Parts: sequence; structure tokens; C-alpha cells
Amino acid sequence: MTEKVVLAYSGGLDTTVAVRWLKDNKGLDVVAVGVDVGQAGDLEAIRERAMKSGAIDAVMVDAVDEFASDFVVPSLHANALYQQKYPLVSALSRPLISKHLAEAAAQHGAAYVAHGCTGKGNDQVRFEVSLAAIAPELTVLAPIREWGMTREDAISYGMEAGLPIPVGPAAPYSIDENLWGRTIECGILEDPMVEPPADIWERTADPFDAPDEPVYLEIGFERGVPVSLDGEAIGLPALIRAVEKVAGAFGYGRVDMIEDRVVGIKSREIYEVPGALALITAHADLEELTLDREVLRLKRVLEQRYAQLIYEGLWYSPLREAMDAFMTETAKHVIGTVRLRFEPGNARVVGRESSGSLYDYSVATYDKEDSFDHSAAEGFVKLWGLPLKIWARTKQKLNP
Amino acid sequence: MTEKVVLAYSGGLDTTVAVRWLKDNKGLDVVAVGVDVGQAGDLEAIRERAMKSGAIDAVMVDAVDEFASDFVVPSLHANALYQQKYPLVSALSRPLISKHLAEAAAQHGAAYVAHGCTGKGNDQVRFEVSLAAIAPELTVLAPIREWGMTREDAISYGMEAGLPIPVGPAAPYSIDENLWGRTIECGILEDPMVEPPADIWERTADPFDAPDEPVYLEIGFERGVPVSLDGEAIGLPALIRAVEKVAGAFGYGRVDMIEDRVVGIKSREIYEVPGALALITAHADLEELTLDREVLRLKRVLEQRYAQLIYEGLWYSPLREAMDAFMTETAKHVIGTVRLRFEPGNARVVGRESSGSLYDYSVATYDKEDSFDHSAAEGFVKLWGLPLKIWARTKQKLNP
Amino acid sequence: MTEKVVLAYSGGLDTTVAVRWLKDNKGLDVVAVGVDVGQAGDLEAIRERAMKSGAIDAVMVDAVDEFASDFVVPSLHANALYQQKYPLVSALSRPLISKHLAEAAAQHGAAYVAHGCTGKGNDQVRFEVSLAAIAPELTVLAPIREWGMTREDAISYGMEAGLPIPVGPAAPYSIDENLWGRTIECGILEDPMVEPPADIWERTADPFDAPDEPVYLEIGFERGVPVSLDGEAIGLPALIRAVEKVAGAFGYGRVDMIEDRVVGIKSREIYEVPGALALITAHADLEELTLDREVLRLKRVLEQRYAQLIYEGLWYSPLREAMDAFMTETAKHVIGTVRLRFEPGNARVVGRESSGSLYDYSVATYDKEDSFDHSAAEGFVKLWGLPLKIWARTKQKLNP
Amino acid sequence: MTEKVVLAYSGGLDTTVAVRWLKDNKGLDVVAVGVDVGQAGDLEAIRERAMKSGAIDAVMVDAVDEFASDFVVPSLHANALYQQKYPLVSALSRPLISKHLAEAAAQHGAAYVAHGCTGKGNDQVRFEVSLAAIAPELTVLAPIREWGMTREDAISYGMEAGLPIPVGPAAPYSIDENLWGRTIECGILEDPMVEPPADIWERTADPFDAPDEPVYLEIGFERGVPVSLDGEAIGLPALIRAVEKVAGAFGYGRVDMIEDRVVGIKSREIYEVPGALALITAHADLEELTLDREVLRLKRVLEQRYAQLIYEGLWYSPLREAMDAFMTETAKHVIGTVRLRFEPGNARVVGRESSGSLYDYSVATYDKEDSFDHSAAEGFVKLWGLPLKIWARTKQKLNP
Repeated sequence: MTEKVVLAYSGGLDTTVAVRWLKDNKGLDVVAVGVDVGQAGDLEAIRERAMKSGAIDAVMVDAVDEFASDFVVPSLHANALYQQKYPLVSALSRPLISKHLAEAAAQHGAAYVAHGCTGKGNDQVRFEVSLAAIAPELTVLAPIREWGMTREDAISYGMEAGLPIPVGPAAPYSIDENLWGRTIECGILEDPMVEPPADIWERTADPFDAPDEPVYLEIGFERGVPVSLDGEAIGLPALIRAVEKVAGAFGYGRVDMIEDRVVGIKSREIYEVPGALALITAHADLEELTLDREVLRLKRVLEQRYAQLIYEGLWYSPLREAMDAFMTETAKHVIGTVRLRFEPGNARVVGRESSGSLYDYSVATYDKEDSFDHSAAEGFVKLWGLPLKIWARTKQKLNP
Repeated sequence: MTEKVVLAYSGGLDTTVAVRWLKDNKGLDVVAVGVDVGQAGDLEAIRERAMKSGAIDAVMVDAVDEFASDFVVPSLHANALYQQKYPLVSALSRPLISKHLAEAAAQHGAAYVAHGCTGKGNDQVRFEVSLAAIAPELTVLAPIREWGMTREDAISYGMEAGLPIPVGPAAPYSIDENLWGRTIECGILEDPMVEPPADIWERTADPFDAPDEPVYLEIGFERGVPVSLDGEAIGLPALIRAVEKVAGAFGYGRVDMIEDRVVGIKSREIYEVPGALALITAHADLEELTLDREVLRLKRVLEQRYAQLIYEGLWYSPLREAMDAFMTETAKHVIGTVRLRFEPGNARVVGRESSGSLYDYSVATYDKEDSFDHSAAEGFVKLWGLPLKIWARTKQKLNP
Repeated sequence: MTEKVVLAYSGGLDTTVAVRWLKDNKGLDVVAVGVDVGQAGDLEAIRERAMKSGAIDAVMVDAVDEFASDFVVPSLHANALYQQKYPLVSALSRPLISKHLAEAAAQHGAAYVAHGCTGKGNDQVRFEVSLAAIAPELTVLAPIREWGMTREDAISYGMEAGLPIPVGPAAPYSIDENLWGRTIECGILEDPMVEPPADIWERTADPFDAPDEPVYLEIGFERGVPVSLDGEAIGLPALIRAVEKVAGAFGYGRVDMIEDRVVGIKSREIYEVPGALALITAHADLEELTLDREVLRLKRVLEQRYAQLIYEGLWYSPLREAMDAFMTETAKHVIGTVRLRFEPGNARVVGRESSGSLYDYSVATYDKEDSFDHSAAEGFVKLWGLPLKIWARTKQKLNP
Repeated sequence: MTEKVVLAYSGGLDTTVAVRWLKDNKGLDVVAVGVDVGQAGDLEAIRERAMKSGAIDAVMVDAVDEFASDFVVPSLHANALYQQKYPLVSALSRPLISKHLAEAAAQHGAAYVAHGCTGKGNDQVRFEVSLAAIAPELTVLAPIREWGMTREDAISYGMEAGLPIPVGPAAPYSIDENLWGRTIECGILEDPMVEPPADIWERTADPFDAPDEPVYLEIGFERGVPVSLDGEAIGLPALIRAVEKVAGAFGYGRVDMIEDRVVGIKSREIYEVPGALALITAHADLEELTLDREVLRLKRVLEQRYAQLIYEGLWYSPLREAMDAFMTETAKHVIGTVRLRFEPGNARVVGRESSGSLYDYSVATYDKEDSFDHSAAEGFVKLWGLPLKIWARTKQKLNP
């Protein structure tokens, strides 16, 4: 009996050619799996294309809610921004897709899974390490990395095989997208000194084209999860999309950065992440109202490590589990409302309130209600500075 | 002979009253010292007011260049943002002012210095710890913290004494400013849910009132220091002001945050820091082009600690010296140009280039010139994921 | 009605005098509370002394099991060693005692609690911050810090009042002890260059007097908690004492260090902690067998922060709760047996095994069974070194 | 003309066979380079063996002083212990050997260098990454990793070729050593539960065989470097050997650990490092006397990162340079004398003194000379605990 491979299928040129290549070169029957993580596109059309390409089966999985609750939420709890900028759009979806690949492999009795990544990107790492962690018995194939065909070769190969490959000129950029944002790379963007052209943006307007009046949104959080908009309860995917729409209209959420890839090289990356950035901004602000200083200080350091591990494909790792335990514990206290003012180019927090607020007006005010013990400050400052005073005296003795 | 006290003098109500209070209550002759760190205001008028208030001497020190080179530069090297938001405006000037107080004390043979801070702010800590570190033999007085007068008491006291105190209604906010930015607090701002009113802003326009066309600035860096604007060499204070002017016009650089003070309370603070934020953004971006990944990762963590120590008054500390050694070593490599696009509400990096760039087109490109060894990736990914594979197998054995 | 104060009572001179002083100077009725955390001493005798000193009530609480399970276990999970040396003996018991003080205050309707600490030690901080966190409505008194009496003054005061204070010469050292170890300070030990005299040690022999043959102990762990000794299940307090006895006999577990106190000064401290150190050593070793590298790296950094926060009195803090969540998650995997060889002066791990071991003989061996993919290494090393290769080339271009 | 390869030559079976294999399989002339980093062995005999094996040239470099000053000193400044246990014996010598390989390659006009490491150890990484960083133009060969011969194959190959390979049974362990310590691995040691047999130890006695009387050594430090022994100035290599001899005689310095290798696996490693551990212990102790608390806290965290980067082959990296800048700045203050008591199984610090001591008897003492301001403590503790008090009140309000 012919063995099977489950292929992560996007409907693009590479994975379409891969369906055939895996049969021709590995002698495997291909089960194509597509996962809806909130990207645009007609999944049924993609499914049909997979079948026309020679797949023995093709399955499209609706995973938007799962993506929001199991991947976006932990990431938001951690305010996860790789290099303090990139909200891990693709890095978050890869482990989810890997999980569905492994499930499909189990259902179809496949010993192989395959992805369509090249050898220099991050996604190969994310797929292969995720699969090693959740299904170590599976063998992972990387046809595009292995075949070494140029784009032209791949087109010829696909044409000869009669595959339903896209016609027309090559897309000038490489795009990946999902509920949490959109990634744009390659082409002219590979020159770090070239300004990203206007035609790459889909989810964000130019700030010069922003509305004439500010929009205010009040985002309500429970346990660190956004659960309401202007007081109305709303599911997370809908909330993300609603915030993204407003933020994008004001031209907020464009990221242009030099990024350190897992494989040891720097690349230039462009992201459109208006919803993700606005929500992370609001969440982090509410944390500053509701979390203790020392918790915040340590958490802000851990957040960087968290973002790195997700970026580097280590989602299914005991490190993430341990860090999630930390984050979840802190999230218990993050309750309240953040008021965002959307203005051209910006989503600015202009107010926040919480039943768990640690801001105490009676001690913070300079007003008459002040209940802060000013005399305690003298003793505090004295001991706070004591180590440096001893230090200074010692140095004076050494170097009179 | 009457002993002397050197008083940090701003010309405001509190320090004007303090001149007299120190004489009346401590029996000290007051030498008033004002330090120009780039704030607005007529220093000569302030000097005269000090004399009229009864000071035996009054000195105004021009310290703008010193502030830029010795305080702003190290802070920029560290991309120092307290809580990742506040560029340490007042926190940077206090140690500099303390140094000039100590120098004046030495010149005038004073055994005392005094500042005009209250008992619940950060600045008392910064002054007293700085002075403990640079002149541990001096005794520091804090008349405002000690006297316990309300504002009204202080005015009465000053009126009776015939002091040249400001008349008219109290300012609704408490302001501090210098070359690096402007701080606004108190009054209605003490309610964290109230949006900052439009009248508090001086250095930033509303983004809705931004110019209609983008402005591009190219900032040139050498050893991590901005040294040119659009190719023209320019001194640091002038450069900061020029960038601030553009950034502010576009409504960029407003910060509204809940802040953890040294004395253990949370406060709500507003900052206007268009120049500082634009320069830190540009500097950090250039670092991502020119610094090694592992350097960046550690540096980004250290930056948080650096900002904390400055915020907490530990400028003159061996920890700053050791961290500065780290920062200075990394800054050696930060050379090049960053292109900023100023657009409503934003200062976005849209290009960067460097003779020390670690971005290598030949390995990064997906184009034909690709020189990256794709086959190496397979082995890399295998070993990268090996720990998780072993982990997964072990867990499978434990929980079959 | 006379108000009440609950006093942490040890039976020593200071707290005995404090019983009377609190009545004389504060007009309070004293309820004395002693807590057994595993120290030596006759609690009933202490109770009687409290009553004879004028307490209206005296309660001795047996808290050994609670100390072991609720304070030692989390601390062991975190391998908590302040400055990587001190296993937090007193720092662990203070929050527990504080809890029992607060409970007694609630039972007796007391609005005050009191401790017997001076103004320069750490324990005042631990008591007062613990009490602020668990019973913020209570007022804390610190009679010894407040009264400013010398030891001689206190003795005179006690003698005149007819208190049952210890007679004879003053103890040459200040001692605190519990199940987890023993602290010795003061007197001649305050000179950091003086070797601790032989008479200070109680729980450890001189290594020169160790037994002639090694002793081996196998300590079994479940979820990071030691649960068996040489295969026999045993409760934690008994296990700690059994290990301490062996380790101490071999002269293992003496600590002599310069310590940074919370109040900003350095002190010289001596500890006897043979059981604590042997168990931490065993636990950390088993972690290295059973925890993932990246977990270990982050955990080892967090452990330092954990020890600091306990040392600094922040036991009842959200930071500890969040860190405990992290630690508890990792502890799930720490199962197995560690074999310790006790030899003169040392407790050396000479073997460890675990059903959750991540040591995989088949990949680790250099023997014939080797299943490691050597060819993968080439690709791995190439990409591992790629950033430095690009770095080197860039520097060569800049400085040919 | 035949191209040349510079081979790191140890005189053992593998590198002896490699001389011939490189000629047979790569057509290269071999220049053998041996580097004396303080290991035992007759270098001239090794040189002759290389020539007899067919090398066209063989050079032995005396690098002991260089190793001490340029590699051990920075490592000691950082108290570098991988996993807080292993003082980086081999990890420190590999970059030094790499440097001499690169120099020899330049002298001999070789385009290739070669090392004798396998595919699963750390040393391949250290050699190849070091060479990538200091001579990126060189191609590195790894014959042993490439040839895939078993030990028996290699012997047959060598015998047939008439090479001067060692006869007799294979050594039961794999050893590496230098001035800083000795590494033992493989064979029976690969079972983590097996106690290391007595015959593996060369530099340490069993503690049961320790001398009957303690030995005291006073180690003098300047700028963090040990420069004298019992008051006598002494060069670093001689000092290390003298301390090692005493420490080893007392059975101190045996390390048995589960180690996380660069290539993603755990291994069991044994080290004998009596001198290194005694010196690191002394150095770290002196730091606690002479460095500020905040410096120490950050440094202790950085030390772990430092040890990791050295372990992982990143010696010639900008991260090390930046961290060294930090370490060197702190080392300025590390001056003084540490008194070590060598006793069976232990090297215990029993005294330390320094002209730069931050221990201040007058504030630390509980004696009559006490100059500490006890009243300041009250205010300090109040503000220190204020965040937790506000926290507690907030939680009480939320959950009455």
C-alpha cells in the first residue's frame, strides 16, 4: 500500500507543485490540509485546487476560534513582540497548523508530513520543531527546501504536469496573514534603505488619509483577555477585527524592521498589525494599573524571552508552559477598561480604570486629601542612598 | 560666621519661600543655584528673584551642552525608557543639577545643600542619592518636605516676608522640562481615566493638525551618537531641537502612563517627548542593523535595568558605570543613517543603511543571488528541535 | 477596655523586657505568641516565662509541618540561595510567624502586633512587610527599635521590673534557628577577616572529625519534593533532619559570607545549613537530568530573583505567587532519585536516575549504539556560527 | 602546488590518522600544530609523531601564559561556571588553539584548517565558530566527523599506513586537560547513575586521604586578578598550580554533572578543577566585600550568560567584548586578600579584607560603636512595604 504524507497546503504555486512532486519523487499519496487562521481567501477553492493537483484527499479546517483562544490569548498575556516590535503573526499560526497536520496524519495513517517552506526562513523551524514535539514519530519532508528548483523551474514542472497553478506575473512580495496581522517580505523590500511602497498595505491607510475626527474605543478586559468593546460583550475574533478596522483606518500599525531570524541572518520585514498593536498597547497599559511594580519589572523581561521562544518555533515546549503559568497567574489581576483614542497614525491610551487598580488617589495626590506619610520618605531616601554613600566614602579614602 | 546652604533654585513659589525659610528656621545663608538644562525661561530674571528673596548669592549655570553630552548620550545609547515609555526627562537632569550644587557648595564653603522637592516624588530621591554619592560630607535639607505648609500657607508666609512670589491663580499642573522633554502632572491629570486636556501640550500638536505632507529626516550616527541631519553635521542640542520641532508638529511624542515611583506608589504621568522618542526610535533601529543578535537580546534586557536605575536616582553609581562600559562597547559599531518619515501621529523608520551593516543581501535574499546554504538548514533544524523531540519521547513513555 | 498587642515572643531578654515595656509605655495588654518552626528549646518553659513577664496570655504554635510544606518546599523548588549561598533560614520563618501573629490578633481582637527586631536587621522588614500584606489594618510596633536602650539598660529595666530574664554573661553571638538551618552573627564575627571560632558550630562537625567511611543516601523526589530516603517514604521534616544529621557529621554545610542586607549595608553572616544545602544540591542535580535546557537557563536566573524577594520580606507578594506558578509547573517533571556520597567536607552527587530523564544514552554515547545524526552537526554548526562569520566579514571590510 | 591544511594535532589516535587521511582523501599537505595550554605531555614527542605521520611541518606553541592572561582572567572576572558548576576548561582553550591555527594557516599559506572533533561534542562548535569569527576566509575540515570510521576502523587504517599510533587497549575514558582543569568522559561514566570510579582522578585525592591539618592560603587580588599567595607575588600560571595542588590534596574540586551540550543533548561529565574552583570561590567572595549590591545582582545574572556563550563557542563575539567591558569595569574595585582554609573536601573562605571594602563596621555592628540611623529604618520599611499594603487593601476590597 502506498504510504501517505499530509501536506500543509496553501493553494499557492509551491505547495501545488509539491503535491505532484511528493508523488513523483517520494512515491507518497498526498493528503492536503489547509487551516483557516483568519486569512482572506476562498477555502473551498483551495480545497478543489488541491484535489485537482492530485491529492487523494483535501481537508480545510476552520481554526479561527482556536487560534484566538489558544494562541493569541497567551501571546497577548505576554505582550509578545519579537524585538519589541513584531507581534508574531506567522510564528503563532505555525504551531497550530502543525497540530492539525499531526491530527490529520493520525486520522489518515500517514507516517509523513510536509510543509512548503524554504531553507532560510523561520517557518521551516516552526513546523519541524512543533512536529518533533507533538508527534516525534512522524517524518517531516520539506520539498521546496529539498528540490532546489527556481520559481521558473517550478512553474515549468507544474505546467508540464497540468497542475492548476496560478498564471500571470509573479507576485512582487511574499505574503502571509491571519487574524493577528499580515506579513509582507521579498522583492524591493529586501533593500533596507528603500521605503516600502504604498501598494503593499492592505489593512492600514496612510495616516494622511485618516478620518477627520478621533474615534474612542473602550476595551474591557477580564483576566487579561479583551472581552468587550464600548461596554458590549464580544467574541475575541470579532473584537480583534473591529479594533483592527478602526486602527487601520487611522494608519496605525505599520512595522518596518530589521529582524534576526532563527537561522542566523538578518532580514528586513514589513508587518501590518493595527489590531494586534492596539490590543497589546491597551493590555500593557492596564497591567501597569493593576500589577505590582516588581511583577511588572520581571514580566517585562520575561516577555522578551517569551516572544523569542515563539518566534524560534518552541511553542510546544516546557519553557512556554512554565512561562504561561507565570503569565496566567499575573493575568488574574488584569481586569478593567482601557480607553483608546484613535487619531491619525496613533492609538493612544487616554484613560484606564479597574476595580483592581493599584493607583491609590489618596496616596498619589498632591492635593489636600494626601494621606501619604511624607516623613517616612526621609528615612527611606536615607537608606536607599546608604550603599552609595558608603561607596563614595570608600572611594574617597582610596583616592583622597 | 553664619553657615551656608546651596539651594537648587527654580524661581517658583516653593523655592522662593525656601530661601527665606532656610534663613528663618535653620539660620543659614542661602546661595541660590539655577541650572539651565534646556528649559524655557529667563534665567537672569530668576537670578534676580533669588537675590530679592534674600539669597546672599545667586548663580545661573549654563549646562545645556553638558546635559546633552554627559547625560542624554549615555541614555540614548541605552535607549533608556522607564517602563518602556518614559525617556527620563527629569531623572536625567537631577544628577547634573546635583553636581552643580555640590560644586557651588565647595566654592562657597557650604556644608548644606537644599532642594525644593516634596516627600512623595522621585526627585527628592534623585537629589539626595546623587549628593550622597558625589559629596557624602554634605548635609541635605528638604525644606518643602519638612515644613509641611500647604500652598496657601506658603503664599501667606511669602507675602508676609515680602518675597517676590508669583501672583495670580495657581498653575493647574506641575511642569518640569529640559532639552530632552517636558513633564506634566497633578490637577485633573491625577484621575487616570480622564483624558489629558488639550491645553497641557506645548511641544506637540494634535495629529489632526499635522502638516499635509510628510517630512523626511535622515539622521546620521557615529558611535551611537546622532551627529548629522540630512547629511549636515550639527551639534547635539541643536539636532535634538530640530528633530523635536518636526516630530512635535506631526503630533508625535505624547506619553500618558501609569508609573511606578521610587517611593512605592503608582502615579499618572504625562510627557511630551517628540525629539527624544524619535531619536531613540532611530537609534534602536540602527542597532538592529549593526549589532549582533545576541548582543541585542542582552542589551534590550539591560536597557530596562538601566532606565530603572536612572529613574531611581542611582546615576552616580558603580552599576551605571559598569552598564555604561557595556553600552559604550556596543555603541562603537552603531554607525550609519536612519531615514525617518514624519507623518501624522508618527515618526516611522522607512530606511536605514550602514557601512557596518550586518544585513547581508546575498544571504538574505530570496532572489537568484542567494548564497545561503539551504542544505545546512536541515541539519540545523534537526538539532535545534532535538531537545524537544527527546522531551516528547520521554513524556510519551511516561504517559503512554 | 485596654487594647491588646500580639507580641512575637522568643523567651530571650529583648522580648521578655518588651512584654513589660509595651504595657508601661504603650498601655497595651500583651498576648505573647511563640512559633515552633523546628528550633531547639522548651516551648512550655518559654510560654511560662511570657506569663511571668506579665503577658495576659501566651500561646505556643507548633508550625513545623506547615513550615516544611508551605515555606521550605517552594524554596527548595526554587533552589533558593540568597547570593547563591544562604538558604534563607530566618527569611523563610518570618512570614510564617507573621501569619500566626495576625491570626492571634484576630482571635484576641488585638489592633497591634509587635516584634523584637532592631532597626538595622532584615527581620524588621520581613515582619512588617508580611503583616502589611496579610493584615494591612494592623499597626506594627517595634519596641526594641523604638526604645533605644542598650543591652545593659534593658537588663536593668528588666531586673527592676522583676522579670524572669536570663542571668549570666551575655551570649557572645546572636542565634536564630529552625528546621532549615541555623544563623550565627555578631560579636567577634563582625570582623570579616576573623575566622569563625570552633565554638559557634552546633549542627556541623569539623571535616577533620568526619567519619572514616563514606555514607551514601538515596533521596527520592516526586514533583520536586523529597519524599523518600534510601527507598523508604518519610515525611519532610524527618527527612530534612535525617539528611542534616549525616551531612553535619561530615562537616558539610558551613557558610561564611558577606551579605547585602535589605537596609543597604553589608554584614558578615555565618550559617550552618547541612541539610538544606544537601537537599538543594540533590534537587538541582535532578533538575538537570529532567528539565529542558531552556527551562533550566531561565529558571536559574529566576531563582536568584526568588531568593532576593524572600530575603527582602516579600513572601506575601504577587511576585512570589507568579514565580511559584512557574516553579510549580517545572517541578511537575522533577521525579527520580539522587545518590549522594557524604565524604569529609562534602556531599557529592555521584548518581541520579529518573523515569523522566532527558538523558538519552542512545544519542549521548560515543559507543557503538550511537544514534545521533553526526551529519546534522555540520549544518547546525554552520548556521550557529553564521552571524559571527557575517560579523567578521563586515569588520574586515570596515578595517581592511 | 598542493594546497595545505593546518591540523590541530594532539598526538592521539584520531588526529594521527587524520594526518594521513587528509592527504589521502583531500589531497592536502598537513601542517600539524600543537598548543601547550598547560596539559601534561611531552610536546617534542608529539611533534615528532606528527612528522612521522606524514605532516610536512609540525609546530608546538607554548601558550600557557597567554592562556592564563587572555582566557583564564576574563573567565575568572566573570566567575564563569557553566550551569553554575563547570569552569569551562576545554571551552576556554578551543578559541586560543583556533587562533594559533589561523596564525599558522596565514604563515603557511594554507586555505584549510582541520580539527579532530566528532559530530556530537561541543568542541567542533568551538573550533568552527572561532575560526569563522577570526578567519572567515578559511575552510574548516572535520575529518573525524566526516569519515565515519569506528575506532577499530581508524586503527586498521593507521596500521596499514604505518602510522605511529598508540598500541595497547583503548583508554577507558576520553580526557582533555589544561592549566584550568581536567575533563573526563565516556565509557562507564555514560551511565549517570554509576559513581565515577576512583581511577579517573589525577588532580584530586579522596577527601578521606586528605592531610590531617588544615592549610591556610591567603590569595591577594588586584583588579580582580590573583597576584600573590601568602603575601608573595607570583605569576598566574604558577599561582593556579600552587592552589590546585593544595586544594587537590584535600579532595576538593570534583564535579559530576548532567550537562546540556550545544548540539541539543544532555551528557554526563566529570571534571577535576580544584584550582579553578578555589580561585573562583575566593574571587567571588572578595567581590561581595568590594562591589555594590546592585552591581553584584546584575553581575551574577550576567555571569551565567557569559559562561553559556563561552561554552557555546562564542568567544570571539561582540557579546563577549561587551560583557568583558562590564566585567572589567567592575574588576577595577576588586582588590584585597581572601583567606582560604583547606580542609578535607572543602576550600572554605574564613576571612577577607580590602582597602576598598564596603563593609562598614560602624554601621554594621550591633556593638556600642553603632552609627547606623535606626530611626531611618522605620520610614524605609514603611515605604518598602507600601506597594504590598496597597495591594492587600485592593484585594480586600475585591474579595471582602
